[in-house]
Amino acid sequence: MQASAETIAQQARKAGNILKTLSDENRSAILFKIHDGLKENAELIRRANALDLEKARETNLTQSLYKRLDLFKGDKFETMLQGVKDVAALADPAGKVKLARQLDENLNLYQVTAPVGVLLVIFESRPEVIANITSLCIKSGNAGILKGGKESVNTFREISKIINQVISENVVSTGVPVGAVQLIETREDVSGLLEQDDYIDLVVPRGSNALVKQIKSSTKIPVLGHADGICSIYLDKDADLEQAKRITLDAKCSYPAGCNAVETLIVNRQMPNWWDVLINLSEAGDVTIHATQEVKKLYLVKLQDLGLTETFKEKVVDVDESVDFDQEFLSLDIAVNFVNTVEEAVSHINTHSSKHTDAIVTENEQNAELFLKAVDSSGVYWNASTRFADGFRYGFGTEVGISTSKIHARGPVGLDGLVSYQYQIRGKGQVASDYVGSGGKRAFLHKDLDLAKVNI
Amino acid sequence: MQASAETIAQQARKAGNILKTLSDENRSAILFKIHDGLKENAELIRRANALDLEKARETNLTQSLYKRLDLFKGDKFETMLQGVKDVAALADPAGKVKLARQLDENLNLYQVTAPVGVLLVIFESRPEVIANITSLCIKSGNAGILKGGKESVNTFREISKIINQVISENVVSTGVPVGAVQLIETREDVSGLLEQDDYIDLVVPRGSNALVKQIKSSTKIPVLGHADGICSIYLDKDADLEQAKRITLDAKCSYPAGCNAVETLIVNRQMPNWWDVLINLSEAGDVTIHATQEVKKLYLVKLQDLGLTETFKEKVVDVDESVDFDQEFLSLDIAVNFVNTVEEAVSHINTHSSKHTDAIVTENEQNAELFLKAVDSSGVYWNASTRFADGFRYGFGTEVGISTSKIHARGPVGLDGLVSYQYQIRGKGQVASDYVGSGGKRAFLHKDLDLAKVNI
Repeated sequence: MQASAETIAQQARKAGNILKTLSDENRSAILFKIHDGLKENAELIRRANALDLEKARETNLTQSLYKRLDLFKGDKFETMLQGVKDVAALADPAGKVKLARQLDENLNLYQVTAPVGVLLVIFESRPEVIANITSLCIKSGNAGILKGGKESVNTFREISKIINQVISENVVSTGVPVGAVQLIETREDVSGLLEQDDYIDLVVPRGSNALVKQIKSSTKIPVLGHADGICSIYLDKDADLEQAKRITLDAKCSYPAGCNAVETLIVNRQMPNWWDVLINLSEAGDVTIHATQEVKKLYLVKLQDLGLTETFKEKVVDVDESVDFDQEFLSLDIAVNFVNTVEEAVSHINTHSSKHTDAIVTENEQNAELFLKAVDSSGVYWNASTRFADGFRYGFGTEVGISTSKIHARGPVGLDGLVSYQYQIRGKGQVASDYVGSGGKRAFLHKDLDLAKVNI
Repeated sequence: MQASAETIAQQARKAGNILKTLSDENRSAILFKIHDGLKENAELIRRANALDLEKARETNLTQSLYKRLDLFKGDKFETMLQGVKDVAALADPAGKVKLARQLDENLNLYQVTAPVGVLLVIFESRPEVIANITSLCIKSGNAGILKGGKESVNTFREISKIINQVISENVVSTGVPVGAVQLIETREDVSGLLEQDDYIDLVVPRGSNALVKQIKSSTKIPVLGHADGICSIYLDKDADLEQAKRITLDAKCSYPAGCNAVETLIVNRQMPNWWDVLINLSEAGDVTIHATQEVKKLYLVKLQDLGLTETFKEKVVDVDESVDFDQEFLSLDIAVNFVNTVEEAVSHINTHSSKHTDAIVTENEQNAELFLKAVDSSGVYWNASTRFADGFRYGFGTEVGISTSKIHARGPVGLDGLVSYQYQIRGKGQVASDYVGSGGKRAFLHKDLDLAKVNI
C-alpha cells in the first residue's frame, strides 16, 4: 500500500532538510553507486521494460511512443547510465557565494546558493528520465518526488526499486537519507501532491502541453516549465539570404516536434529575394507555407516569374490568422506574414509568442540590438537557429526542462535553476538598534568584498 | 470613468515593452523630473493629505495608522523626495551580463538581466510608498500598476496626477511611455487585475498578513512577499551570555511589530546562566516570557534562588505550544523552549518558522556552520540580531519587500529582485543540426568568457 500524499510530501521535506546539509562529495558518491546498481541490474530492468513493451503492443501504442518506451533501443540504456555519472561530475550548484559584503567590522553579509527544497517532477513515457531526474535532484541537494507515465510503469518500478535499495544500503556512508527520491505510480497521488504547498517547493512537469497546462491550473505551488513553444524568426530587410535559408530550414525541419522549432516566419517586405527562403523550405524541407493574403499573392507571382508554379503551388495555403500565429504546428508547416520594420516584428512577437525563443536574421547591427533588447522571450537570438535553445547546447551538462516563466529560472534549466539562495550574516553579537536608521549612531560600511578571496 | 482591469493590464504590458528598450539614462532622467514635479507641487499634495487626515479623524482611525497617513510629519516628505533621487542614482539592474560562453567560433551565448515586465503593487495606508514604488518600477524597467490604501486616497490621487503629468510631458525627451505607472483606486479593480495573468508578471503586496494571504489565495500570478515573520533565535550551549542578552533584547524590543522581530527563543539546556537572558528581556524590555512547562519550572527556581520571584513572576506565563510557536506575537511577548542540541533547534525552526530569518548565538564554529547550512530560511545569522533583515541594512539602497518564497527573489528584495534574465545568442548563421547530438559533426566549445572583458 502506498503512503498518503501528505506523508510522501512530509518525508520528502525531511529528506530535503538532511540533503541540504550534505557535502557535494557525498551527494555525488551516491550517484556513482546508483549508476553501479542500475548497471548490475540491467537484466532485471530489461525484463521489466519488455513487459511494458508487450503491453504497448497489445494496446496499439503509436510507433513514436513505442520507440520512446524502449529503454534498450540502440545505446539508450548506456547513455542513461553515463548521464548519471556526468551529472555527478558537474560542479556543485549549492553553496556558491554570489555576494559578499562587509556591513561593519566583523559583520559580514553573504548571499549563498542553497537547494530549493522539495521538487515534484512529473514526466510522461520515456523511462530513462527517472535516472536523469534522480541525479539532478540529489546533485542539487533537493529531495525529489517522481511520477512517471503509466505506459512505463514496470520499468519505472524496477528502476525505482534499485535506486531506493542503493540509497538505503548507503545511508551510513553517504548520509543521503531514505526518502531523498520517492517514486509514485498513480495519477491519484499526483492530485493529492499538488495540494501539498506546505512541503513541496516546485513542480516540474515534463511532457505535453496538455500535461503542463493541467498542472499549472491545479496547484498553488510554482511550476517550472513551458506549455507552448511558439518560436518566430524575423527576416530583416538586411538579412543575409543564405543565412536566412539555412536557419529557417534547420529551425523548422531538423525536429519539427521540438518546442524550439520555429512556427512563424516574419518577413520584412523590403528583404530582397525573400521568396527564395520559402521555396527552399518547401523544396528541401517539404514545408507547407501558411501565408497571409499579401504574402500568398506576391509569392505566387514570383513562382510564376520563376516558372515554378506547378512545383510549389500545392505547398502554399491561407494562414488562419486568428489561430495559426498563436499555436504550435509541431509539423512541417509554417505561418508567414509581412512587416515593414523591426519594430513591427517585435510587436508581432511580443503579442503572439509564448516567450520561448525568437530570432532575427540581419546584417544590420542596430536592428539586431533593438530586437535583442525588445523581445520579451527567454531566448533572443541574432543569426542563429532557434533550435539552439537546449541545455546540452548551452553547455549546462543536462537540463530539467525549458522554462518560459520570467520568475526564477528561465530558458533551459540546469542545476543552477534548482537552487535558490539564502542570506547569511556572520557577526560578533551586533544588534540593529546600534545603527543609524534604527536609533543608533553607527553607520553601515556596505563594502563589497572580493568574491575570489571569500572563504566561508 | 476608470478603464477595465484588462485594459489597464494591456496598457501596462505595452508600456513595459517600451520601458524595456530604454537606456538607464532615460529611465533615471524621468525620476529626477518626477522628483522636481512632486517638490514643486508640495502644497497641492499637502492639501490632499489634509483631507485624508480630516477623514481619518472623523472615522477614528487608530493613532498609529493616523501617524502613517501624515505625509508631512517631520521630514517624511523630504525623505520621500530624496528616496526618488536615491533610486535614480543606483546602478542599472537590467542589461547585466551574468554568463558569457563561446559555444563555437562566432557563436556566443550570453545570460543578460532583463526587466520582469509588469508589476502589480498593492500597499496599505502609507502614502509615501507610491513615490518609492514608482521609482523602483521605472528604474528596473518594469511597468507598474499601483494600488494604495483607501485611507490615503486623496494624497494618492494627487501624487498620481503629478507623476502622470510629468511622464506625459516628457515622453519625447525620455521615451518613458504614458502608462508606465498606472495608479488605481478601488478594491474592485484589484480583483480584476489579479486575473490578468497574461499581462501581469508579478504581484507585490505590501501590508498586513491578511492582505498578503488573501492575495496569494486569489491569483495565479506569482506573488513576491511574506505573510508571516516567525523568526527564532537559538542560544547554543556555547553562546556568549552578553551577546545573547543584547541580541535577544534588540531582536524582540527595538521594533516588536516588525516582521524581522524575534518571536521564539530556543535555549540549549546546557547553556550556563540562560535565565539571565530571560531576566534581561523582562527587566530591560518588559517582555512577557511564554515558557514551556520545563522552562517555566526551572526559571522560577532560578528566580527564587536570586530573590527575584516577586519582581519577575508576573512576566512568565505558560506557552500554548499548539499556537505560540506558529504565529507572530508582534508584541513584547516571546515563546521559549528547551532543546538538547543544535540539530533539535534546527528541526524546531524548519518545522515552525515562516522561513524569514533565524539566528544562532554561539562561539562554537561547528554548530554555527551546521545551523547556517541546515536552516531553510531566507536569512540565517550567526551572532547577529534578526532585525538586520532589511534592504537598507543589506545595502540594497531600497527594498520592495521581504520575500519568504524560495523561487526567484528571497529575503530583502531590491532592484535586482525585479529583474529576470534572457539568454542571447549572437551568431553568424549557425544551425543546430551541424552539431553533434543533432545529427552533425561539429563539437561545441562551451568555453566561458571573462565577464570583465565582455562588451555587448
